[in-house]
Amino acid sequence: MKNANNRPKLGSRFAYDGLDRIIHERARLSLLTSLITHSKGLPFGELKQLCGLTDGNLNRHLTVLEEAKLVATSKSVEHGRSQTVCRITTLGRKRYIEYLAVLEQVVLDASTAIKTDAPARGGPNPASA
Amino acid sequence: MKNANNRPKLGSRFAYDGLDRIIHERARLSLLTSLITHSKGLPFGELKQLCGLTDGNLNRHLTVLEEAKLVATSKSVEHGRSQTVCRITTLGRKRYIEYLAVLEQVVLDASTAIKTDAPARGGPNPASA
Repeated sequence: MKNANNRPKLGSRFAYDGLDRIIHERARLSLLTSLITHSKGLPFGELKQLCGLTDGNLNRHLTVLEEAKLVATSKSVEHGRSQTVCRITTLGRKRYIEYLAVLEQVVLDASTAIKTDAPARGGPNPASA
Repeated sequence: MKNANNRPKLGSRFAYDGLDRIIHERARLSLLTSLITHSKGLPFGELKQLCGLTDGNLNRHLTVLEEAKLVATSKSVEHGRSQTVCRITTLGRKRYIEYLAVLEQVVLDASTAIKTDAPARGGPNPASA
């Protein structure tokens, strides 16, 4: 059982202030995770496909990330066609790693609670053995 | 090295559609994580403190979660004073656990990439041994 009636300390234990709002938004989390797994960068079209975004949404979120200096875009020419390549910046990588540490804490907090406190899962009060 | 130039399959690998927007919003993630770790429920004041929220913000997000039937509130009287107690519902628990599985995937994808692909961390090209 959790200590629902015996709470030694409060504080904002579950505030997760480190969940940076710029990174946490779902589409941007998707974008940044794609880019951190492709450190050489990704062409716009491929990034769009990996994240399941429309052109408009991708552009909108890239603008937010570029303004925050977490992502950079550049133009390159391939097979005579100009394309936009997106990559995560050094700052973006740093901030993403900080964010990830907090996300890991959420997962840890929650999964510990779920395992410890599973209610009515087939049988009452399994013996501690 | 990641396969930046050799991509066998695309699809929306990083879309993370399971990151339910109702749960993913930072304050609500904070609220639900507090409540899943306190399955007996938490009084309003304590929940507010654990999540570092103002009365107004807590009320606003509780309304969203109650409308989605993920959280239920009830009144109880303690020491002659009425208090609101918040708890996660069975549906809330189910949806949170589904959400958590996707969050774990994000953490896994990202931490694998960060470990595999760490750029210029002290020395170039560590031998694979």
